[in-house]
Amino acid sequence: MYNNKENINIAILGAGTVGGGVYKLIERMQPEMPDKIGASLTVKKVLVRSLAKERPGFDRNVLTDNWQEILNDPDIDIVVELMGGIEPAGTYIVEALKAGKQVVTANKDLLAECDALVLGTAEEYGRDLIFEAAVAGAIPIIRPLRQSMAGNNITEIMGIVNGTTNYILSKMSETGMGYEEALAQATELGYAEADPTADVEGYDAGRKVAIMSSIAFHSRVTFPQVYTEGITKITAEDIRYAKEFGYVIKLLGVARLTDTGIEVKVHPMLIPKNHSLAAVSDAFNAVFLHGDAMDDITLMGRGAGEFPTASAVMGDIIDVCRNIQWGCCGRLSHECYKDISVKSIGECSSKFFLRLIVEDRPGVLANIAAVLGNNGVSIKKVVQNPKDDTSAELVVITDPVCEKNFSDALSVFNGMSVVKKIAGVIRVY
Amino acid sequence: MYNNKENINIAILGAGTVGGGVYKLIERMQPEMPDKIGASLTVKKVLVRSLAKERPGFDRNVLTDNWQEILNDPDIDIVVELMGGIEPAGTYIVEALKAGKQVVTANKDLLAECDALVLGTAEEYGRDLIFEAAVAGAIPIIRPLRQSMAGNNITEIMGIVNGTTNYILSKMSETGMGYEEALAQATELGYAEADPTADVEGYDAGRKVAIMSSIAFHSRVTFPQVYTEGITKITAEDIRYAKEFGYVIKLLGVARLTDTGIEVKVHPMLIPKNHSLAAVSDAFNAVFLHGDAMDDITLMGRGAGEFPTASAVMGDIIDVCRNIQWGCCGRLSHECYKDISVKSIGECSSKFFLRLIVEDRPGVLANIAAVLGNNGVSIKKVVQNPKDDTSAELVVITDPVCEKNFSDALSVFNGMSVVKKIAGVIRVY
Repeated sequence: MYNNKENINIAILGAGTVGGGVYKLIERMQPEMPDKIGASLTVKKVLVRSLAKERPGFDRNVLTDNWQEILNDPDIDIVVELMGGIEPAGTYIVEALKAGKQVVTANKDLLAECDALVLGTAEEYGRDLIFEAAVAGAIPIIRPLRQSMAGNNITEIMGIVNGTTNYILSKMSETGMGYEEALAQATELGYAEADPTADVEGYDAGRKVAIMSSIAFHSRVTFPQVYTEGITKITAEDIRYAKEFGYVIKLLGVARLTDTGIEVKVHPMLIPKNHSLAAVSDAFNAVFLHGDAMDDITLMGRGAGEFPTASAVMGDIIDVCRNIQWGCCGRLSHECYKDISVKSIGECSSKFFLRLIVEDRPGVLANIAAVLGNNGVSIKKVVQNPKDDTSAELVVITDPVCEKNFSDALSVFNGMSVVKKIAGVIRVY
Repeated sequence: MYNNKENINIAILGAGTVGGGVYKLIERMQPEMPDKIGASLTVKKVLVRSLAKERPGFDRNVLTDNWQEILNDPDIDIVVELMGGIEPAGTYIVEALKAGKQVVTANKDLLAECDALVLGTAEEYGRDLIFEAAVAGAIPIIRPLRQSMAGNNITEIMGIVNGTTNYILSKMSETGMGYEEALAQATELGYAEADPTADVEGYDAGRKVAIMSSIAFHSRVTFPQVYTEGITKITAEDIRYAKEFGYVIKLLGVARLTDTGIEVKVHPMLIPKNHSLAAVSDAFNAVFLHGDAMDDITLMGRGAGEFPTASAVMGDIIDVCRNIQWGCCGRLSHECYKDISVKSIGECSSKFFLRLIVEDRPGVLANIAAVLGNNGVSIKKVVQNPKDDTSAELVVITDPVCEKNFSDALSVFNGMSVVKKIAGVIRVY
C-alpha cells in the first residue's frame, strides 16, 4: 500500500505574498519532513509571469515562466496553485489533475464559481484537490467540516471572513470615524487594496460563504447564488445607535439550512455584544458553526497574511504527501450528494434595524407604524430623537420578518412625503 | 486500492452517556452513510457490564457482556471504546488492534498515561487509533494539530478544557459567591461529580494537556509530568481583586515549547479581560494555540455532554471508515519523533498575583519588598488596603520570575512574624 517515495516534488504557481510564504515555510520545515511524510519535500519549480523581475528569497534555478515545463515534468507530484483569479488558474488546475498531479489551491474565486469543473475533474481522475487556505486563512475550517464535524447535520454558519471590512468596521466602532475615513486608513496600512470593491461590497466574503456552504450542506452553492450587500452605506450614526442598543456591527457571511432551502448571504449585521463573534476585531477572522450534535463551535484566527495563509497551504501539502505515500489520493471528494435549492433573498427572514429621518410633526410615528404593520412587520423596539427644527430621527428594531415584506414597507416609505430619508437599513442577529 | 465494503460493522464498548449518544447519532446519520463512506454503518455489538440493567434506546439484541464475542468476531471492523478508565479498556484496545480492528476512543486517562502501549501497538500493527473526543469534546483539536497545523512549529497551547471548574469559576465571578457554594451548585446541576477531585484538582485538565502536548510538540508528554494545581484555594477575594485589576481567573492547561524544554502545567491563572479565553464561560471549553506560521488560533465549543462528545467520536468513526475503504489505516501515527525534556515546575517562569495578610505597622511593606527583591522577584504592581485594626492586605503582581525563586520568597514569608497569612498565590498571564 505504501508508496514509500524518498522525495516528493512540488511546483508552486505564483510567487506573490502567499507563494513566497509557502516557499519559505517549506525551507523552514525541511528537516522535519521525513518524520512527517516519510520523504523529503522539494520545490522543483515556481511559475512566475516574468523571469525579469527580482524575486528575493527564491532560488533562481527553480523559477520558470513556462507552464508546460511543469505540466510535462512527470517528477512533479503536487501543483500548488497560488496565482488567484479564474484564468489561467482554472485551466492549469484541470490540466495538472488530468496529468496525474495532485493539486492544492487557495483560489476562492475559482472554487466559488467553477467548482463543478475543477472538483469534477479531480473526482473523475481520482486526485486530491484541497483548499483549506481558500477560506479564513490559517483557521482550520474546510477540513473540520469534512472530517471532525462529519457526524453532524450542520444548520448554520456565520463568519467574519473578510479582514479588510472587519478592520474598517472595528476602526469606525472604536473611534467614531466615518466609513470613508476608515477606508482611507485601511488603504494606507495595506489592509485594503487600491480597488477595494471585492472586499467592501462583500464579494470576497460571498465566495468564501459559497465554498463553506457547499461542504457543510452537501449541496452545491455557487457565488452567483449568494446575496451580497457591502459596508459602504454604514454610517457613524448607525454604529452609535447599535452600541446604544448593545450591539456591534460586523460584515457577516451567513448560511442557514432551513426546511424550505438554503439561505446564503453576506451583509452587515448587528450582533449582540456578548456573542462570540462580537469580540473579533481588526484583521482577525472567525467562523461560528451550529450542528445538531456538536451544538455551537467558534473558530478564530488570522484570515490573511503571508505566513497564516501559507500555514493552511502547508497543512494541505503535508496531507497530500501522506495520501501519495499511502496511495489514497482522492479519498475525500466534494461530497455534494444532496440537491437543495437556494432561497432568494426575498424568501429569507431577518430582523431589521431601520433608521429613518422623518418630518417632526404629530401623527408621523403612527403613519410609519401603520405602514410596517400593514406589511406584517412587527416592531420590537423604537426610539425617536429630535434631529433638527423640522425633522426627527426614528430608529426601529423589528421582530423577524420575511425580507419581501420588509422591502415592500421600504418602498412605501420611499413614496411618503413625511419620510425625508431612509438613512439606515441593517439586519439584526 | 478501494476496498469497497458494502457495510462496516462497529462495536461500542460502554453504554453510558457518550456510548448512548454515539448509538443514537449513528441511527440518525444512517441514511447519509453510503454517501459519506460508500457503505452502510452497523452497530453490531455494544459491550455492557450487566445485561440485567435496562438500556432504553438500545436494541437488546446487540447488547453483550462478553468481550470475547466482539474480539473474536471477524466481521467487526471498528471498536469504539467509551468505557473510560485504564483497565480493562487498555487491554481491550490492545487486543482489538492485534486482532486487526481499528480503534476509536475518548479515553483521556489511558492516552495520558499508557500512550506508549496503546499507540505503540497501533503503530506496530498499522491500525488506526484515533481519539478526537479525548480532548475538549466537540471541538476539533487533535485532528487540526496533526493536519491543518502540521506546517507549524507550535510553541504554545492554553486551554480551558474542564467544564466543571470553568462553571464554578464563572459562577464565583458572576455572583461573588465562594468556592464551596459554587461547587455545591455545580454538583446539584450535575456539572460536578459526587467526587469532584479529578476536576477541581486539575487532573482531568492535566491529562488533556498531556495529550495535546505530545501531538503539538512531537515529543511524548505523560500525565505524571504535568504540574497540576486545582481551584480549591481560590477565594471570592482573589476574584474581586482580579476583577479590579482587569483580569478574570480561569483554570488553564498551559503547555509551552521553550529553548530549555517543555513547560506543561495546569493551574488557575489571571488572564486579561480582553483575551479570547476570558469570555469562555460556564461549561464551554476553548483552546488557544500559537504557531510560528499560523500565529494565534482559538477554538471554542462544548467540551462535554452526550451529543457534543458523540459528535467528535462520530467524526473519528467516519474517518476510520474512509481509511478502511481506501486501505490506508494507520496513515497518521502518533508522530512523537522528537525527544524533548519536560521542565520541572521550579524551572518554569511565571508572573504571580500574591495576596498577603500582614501586620499593619511601619516598615512591613519595605520588609516584604526586600524579601521579594532578594529572591530576584521584581514587582509590577502593588496595592495595600487596611484589613482590620491590626492587619493590612497587601496585593502584589510580579514581573515574570523563575518559579523556584518565587517559591523561595514564599518560604521566607512563611517564617516571618509580620506575615499573618499567605492568602492567595495565583499565576498571571
